Amino acid sequence: MPDIAAVKAALTAQRIETPSWGYGNSGTRFKVFAQAGVPRDPYEKLDDAAKVHEFTGVAPKVALHIPWDRVDDYTALGAHAKERGLELGAINSNVFQDDDYKLGSVCHPDPRVRRKATDHLLECVDIMDATGSSDLKLWFSDGTNYPGQDDIVGRQERLAEALAEVYERLGDDQRMLLEYKLFEPAFYTTDVPDWGTAYAHCLKLGPKAQVVVDTGHHAPGTNIEFIVAFLLSQGKLGGFDFNSRFYADDDLMVGAADPFQLFRILHEVAKNRGLEAETGVAFMLDQCHNIEAKIPAVIRSVMNVQEATAKALLVDLDALGEAQRSGDVLAANAALMDAYNTDVRPLLREVREERGLAPDPVAAYRASGWQEHIVADRVGGTQAGWGA
Amino acid sequence: MPDIAAVKAALTAQRIETPSWGYGNSGTRFKVFAQAGVPRDPYEKLDDAAKVHEFTGVAPKVALHIPWDRVDDYTALGAHAKERGLELGAINSNVFQDDDYKLGSVCHPDPRVRRKATDHLLECVDIMDATGSSDLKLWFSDGTNYPGQDDIVGRQERLAEALAEVYERLGDDQRMLLEYKLFEPAFYTTDVPDWGTAYAHCLKLGPKAQVVVDTGHHAPGTNIEFIVAFLLSQGKLGGFDFNSRFYADDDLMVGAADPFQLFRILHEVAKNRGLEAETGVAFMLDQCHNIEAKIPAVIRSVMNVQEATAKALLVDLDALGEAQRSGDVLAANAALMDAYNTDVRPLLREVREERGLAPDPVAAYRASGWQEHIVADRVGGTQAGWGA
Amino acid sequence: MPDIAAVKAALTAQRIETPSWGYGNSGTRFKVFAQAGVPRDPYEKLDDAAKVHEFTGVAPKVALHIPWDRVDDYTALGAHAKERGLELGAINSNVFQDDDYKLGSVCHPDPRVRRKATDHLLECVDIMDATGSSDLKLWFSDGTNYPGQDDIVGRQERLAEALAEVYERLGDDQRMLLEYKLFEPAFYTTDVPDWGTAYAHCLKLGPKAQVVVDTGHHAPGTNIEFIVAFLLSQGKLGGFDFNSRFYADDDLMVGAADPFQLFRILHEVAKNRGLEAETGVAFMLDQCHNIEAKIPAVIRSVMNVQEATAKALLVDLDALGEAQRSGDVLAANAALMDAYNTDVRPLLREVREERGLAPDPVAAYRASGWQEHIVADRVGGTQAGWGA
Amino acid sequence: MPDIAAVKAALTAQRIETPSWGYGNSGTRFKVFAQAGVPRDPYEKLDDAAKVHEFTGVAPKVALHIPWDRVDDYTALGAHAKERGLELGAINSNVFQDDDYKLGSVCHPDPRVRRKATDHLLECVDIMDATGSSDLKLWFSDGTNYPGQDDIVGRQERLAEALAEVYERLGDDQRMLLEYKLFEPAFYTTDVPDWGTAYAHCLKLGPKAQVVVDTGHHAPGTNIEFIVAFLLSQGKLGGFDFNSRFYADDDLMVGAADPFQLFRILHEVAKNRGLEAETGVAFMLDQCHNIEAKIPAVIRSVMNVQEATAKALLVDLDALGEAQRSGDVLAANAALMDAYNTDVRPLLREVREERGLAPDPVAAYRASGWQEHIVADRVGGTQAGWGA
Repeated sequence: MPDIAAVKAALTAQRIETPSWGYGNSGTRFKVFAQAGVPRDPYEKLDDAAKVHEFTGVAPKVALHIPWDRVDDYTALGAHAKERGLELGAINSNVFQDDDYKLGSVCHPDPRVRRKATDHLLECVDIMDATGSSDLKLWFSDGTNYPGQDDIVGRQERLAEALAEVYERLGDDQRMLLEYKLFEPAFYTTDVPDWGTAYAHCLKLGPKAQVVVDTGHHAPGTNIEFIVAFLLSQGKLGGFDFNSRFYADDDLMVGAADPFQLFRILHEVAKNRGLEAETGVAFMLDQCHNIEAKIPAVIRSVMNVQEATAKALLVDLDALGEAQRSGDVLAANAALMDAYNTDVRPLLREVREERGLAPDPVAAYRASGWQEHIVADRVGGTQAGWGA
Repeated sequence: MPDIAAVKAALTAQRIETPSWGYGNSGTRFKVFAQAGVPRDPYEKLDDAAKVHEFTGVAPKVALHIPWDRVDDYTALGAHAKERGLELGAINSNVFQDDDYKLGSVCHPDPRVRRKATDHLLECVDIMDATGSSDLKLWFSDGTNYPGQDDIVGRQERLAEALAEVYERLGDDQRMLLEYKLFEPAFYTTDVPDWGTAYAHCLKLGPKAQVVVDTGHHAPGTNIEFIVAFLLSQGKLGGFDFNSRFYADDDLMVGAADPFQLFRILHEVAKNRGLEAETGVAFMLDQCHNIEAKIPAVIRSVMNVQEATAKALLVDLDALGEAQRSGDVLAANAALMDAYNTDVRPLLREVREERGLAPDPVAAYRASGWQEHIVADRVGGTQAGWGA
Repeated sequence: MPDIAAVKAALTAQRIETPSWGYGNSGTRFKVFAQAGVPRDPYEKLDDAAKVHEFTGVAPKVALHIPWDRVDDYTALGAHAKERGLELGAINSNVFQDDDYKLGSVCHPDPRVRRKATDHLLECVDIMDATGSSDLKLWFSDGTNYPGQDDIVGRQERLAEALAEVYERLGDDQRMLLEYKLFEPAFYTTDVPDWGTAYAHCLKLGPKAQVVVDTGHHAPGTNIEFIVAFLLSQGKLGGFDFNSRFYADDDLMVGAADPFQLFRILHEVAKNRGLEAETGVAFMLDQCHNIEAKIPAVIRSVMNVQEATAKALLVDLDALGEAQRSGDVLAANAALMDAYNTDVRPLLREVREERGLAPDPVAAYRASGWQEHIVADRVGGTQAGWGA
Repeated sequence: MPDIAAVKAALTAQRIETPSWGYGNSGTRFKVFAQAGVPRDPYEKLDDAAKVHEFTGVAPKVALHIPWDRVDDYTALGAHAKERGLELGAINSNVFQDDDYKLGSVCHPDPRVRRKATDHLLECVDIMDATGSSDLKLWFSDGTNYPGQDDIVGRQERLAEALAEVYERLGDDQRMLLEYKLFEPAFYTTDVPDWGTAYAHCLKLGPKAQVVVDTGHHAPGTNIEFIVAFLLSQGKLGGFDFNSRFYADDDLMVGAADPFQLFRILHEVAKNRGLEAETGVAFMLDQCHNIEAKIPAVIRSVMNVQEATAKALLVDLDALGEAQRSGDVLAANAALMDAYNTDVRPLLREVREERGLAPDPVAAYRASGWQEHIVADRVGGTQAGWGA
């Protein structure tokens, strides 16, 4: 049986990175519904992120998205973070919103556009140098909408060339996290559509290139925990972009659509040493709170990851392994389900209280008055969103 | 064997309605790439639609979207259309872009919002009176993002109530076309998610309510032609929103992703008298030309529907029926495939030339100078898009 | 907050019907792996079913499948059941395994085959008269593999004709439960592919015809609880065929693939009075235990339904409704998740102990020696399977 | 524009391998419908395959499946083939139908079962030595049905170990073709579920290991031509198992479900030198003719591959490349569609006639009397099927 002290220690040690853009407005192609109190700049986003960390105790890192979070002085931004107990996390590049990128960025047929896109990626490494971030997260919207639109293999070669140039630029303590996605915004081909493509590129690039698994980026029916286990076994899992989905890339709160899947993923992580710091798996959120209140939604998401992790840590690996080796299908399944069916909320409340935190982070946030403060205070200016 | 004169007559008689919003800018949640020369108002949209009709000869109707196409004087708009050989087609309601609709429109938990939404639908019928349009096309983005967010059955009751009120308002020559969609923008439940739900509501409403099949609105693996055949057999197919998809509701040009599926759909239409005017099936496009040139994309789409229709008309129904009745699977399939494998482009060129049209509408459009004209002329102002 | 005594009463009252074929061998098209101790005839299947009821206390009914469970004397079979505390449940027809049914049964192009198939359905009603079963469960494998193979509308008409004849034959206390399925064994069209088709036929037939929801028979992404809620609201939900799936119709143990989905389904059932006996919803299992031990797998499945039901009964409907009406997305979702995240196994152990049952039915079965008994005893003869 | 003589030469040179099991009975888990005249042994399968080659001229190779095609004397079998103008093709292993393989073969938790499975693979290489076959085709049904059933990473390690042992055993002119499949018969994890996993293993094994793409083995929405292009560019595409599907692994005739997809795949093949013999891409069929006549279905399938190939060869690569480089989405798409919309049946009839073949192979087969001959002649004995 798992040792409860060790489980608590692991839960206390876990870190979940929140995305700066999760605090801003987002929506679908049909409509962005603005919310009162949304940050107007990266500093205010950090202020909100600080609240998530204050009440959960496990979310000190905040991922930035360039150019949405571009500032004149990253040292000042870093100081602003530090004052609030935060650090700046992964730098996310954006090569999909400039008018030049209509037909792609690093895979574009025009070398001028590719140059521009690659330069942006290099700029992101510069920013990493300034912020002390170790992770460059790359998601490419590159792809095509129509059969014949461009050459599939040619685009792969252009991609490889750009990645190689950026890889060379990385410092010793920096790495490149390559994300894949089945589709959207491209609707026929996507240039990094699946883990196999991301893995193949990372393998050629070298040890500093790893794959990021966004839990919403797969074809229906894909067994995500298989991918996670495989990548971990090969030393190629760089991290997660957590969210959840019923259909496409819905970007709902992680654990909201299929909490059992999230548990299965974290079981593979826990079993294959992915919770140990030296494995280097980054646990990041990447979500859109289109209609729900943003800060409590982030808090809830952090808690959902914690609960799935707690259940994963409660799996009796000895009993599980014994049942697996003996071929007892029902007993092996039952060993896993026993952990999943456990209510871990009391355990997590205990972990929080032992650290001096309120047992219910959402309630504590609601009672804190922060929401009322920002709604009253953040009037005027331009609310942050995907475009700004 | 099909009679070629009859095939040509059917192809000449077919009408394909184009959507006003297909001429404006569109995109994904990530980015709208603006195109030069895009219309700034409904009048300019009609100017573009007139070009599509000029070169294809089968696209005289233009669907409007309210409020995107709201004008002060619909008589003037109708006259503008008529001068260009066009008529105003279906009126499409929009109850998804007002800030009040964050949690739904006619299914919203708040009766005030439902009233507002229903009033908008009634306004659309007023506009139909003014434009002489016979079809009210209803698509509801209503739904929920999270389990528990709202009551599924309660929302159905609210929906039924609003539909009944609007149905009562319809004139003798007006009908209500109810669209369904699997998901997006709602990510957990959608209030009209499938043909079964739309059909059940239309059945209760009465003969003036019919279902619209948007070819991009189904779950993976759905057999759309089955739905089309079933609805036709029940007198409940009101029309199509044509487009194509590889993944979700991609809104690519119809026939671009799966031309064989389009053929199979049109085979069911042709076989079940859906091409006859009295059946009342509206053939409408509903697409987004995010990255391709818009007017030629609409022309190409019209041609794709024509080609699929031509192939459907070439099916030797006698041979097909004989093989079906005798249980000869391969012969029945071959009878269908023979028509599909035929190159119908020469036949359609002939049909066009017999009507005095250029045989290649895309080339004719490109040679016409219209694109250069609008790029030069439409400078300043605000380009039309989904939001305006 | 839910009243615990009422929750316990509802859990005690719930009945879950097990399928005779779940005790026999099953497999995929690639291989059927036989298990030791499998029943050789319907009497032995009832013996196994009796064990499931003995240890769970909620599974007194056993569904039969004709011809797999055809016996000379149904009175004797009924007596055998009664002696073991069981009743005979739904009669499942089989019009897919005779050589005549290669191209369909009641939809076959040949009237002779249709007659034969309809006669089989009528024979099933005769058996219902003999067994006292109230439910005729109809699943049709009818469909086509290739485009053009047969006429979609023609097949619907043949289906309607056969259903009408069987409907007429039903007694006052008998009903027809019509099942739908996306695909398999037909690979292009299926004649009852979705709930909409089943619903439309049931509506025409009359009040004794209702829809059965097999939880494994939907397209990827289908929201099953929406269908359940809709059918319940229309008085057209006849029952469930429970099982679970990751991909197609995998027929895994219910709750094994997506326990949260099972909970959401049972939440709609509970909320819409589907747990009340007078609503008439039949809770049936329809599974294949291809590689796991069969009797404990059925026990486990019954427990999974119980656990999901218990969680559904624990939803605080007042808090949920209040949050829904006020549009508080997070609070409404949290109200649902609070119930889901509860560990209901202690409550169910209590319910069992109060009825004099062992708290852990699987352990009790394992300790009972029944498995060893049947493995030793059932030697020789032909093991029951799908074909016999 | 493509040179017609070169197109004809390529069509004449193309070879399509047919599977011995395509001539035997097959079905679904629900029923195998036997057909009259089906072969009783491998020799009769070759007799049928010879007819396919006689009428198409491009199908001289026949893949064997061990143990279904196990004979005492492979030299005799080879001679039987040679007399009919045939050669023996790929050797397909079978480690999924022995009772020992219930929980897997080379990934089984029990080393005894793994040894047995690996020995079977080595036996297949022995048979290759005897038949002169160059290709060992490996498909593993290994996987699990329930979460927790076995250790994902542990199974990968066992898989790698077995593959390495077999790889070592290969002769200089032999290669290993590793197939992947999303699911079935395993319903939770599959040990080689996608191209990424197959590719990763092949990469570690070395140059004699390549990936096989079965066109029916992907998740919904997967872009197969992307995978094909990627593998070709890396020298890792060993060949195809052609068939088609609407839902899961339906194993319908290739080109029957989505002929446009087949064309897009062959366009990538043609564009990336996959039709050139030295690239070593094997074009194999892997289908089930459950309800249609088998030999004409194989002939039709061969023709479908030829037609898709012909269209792919007709793509004007200069025009396509020019449009792609200039970013003209519509022109690039049109260049591809122009080839697809061409009716290539006249061209293929010409190619056949120039080789002295009948222009319509299906009609020629039907006129040959072979079907009547085998129906009359093959009476008694046991028909070949998946199990024998």
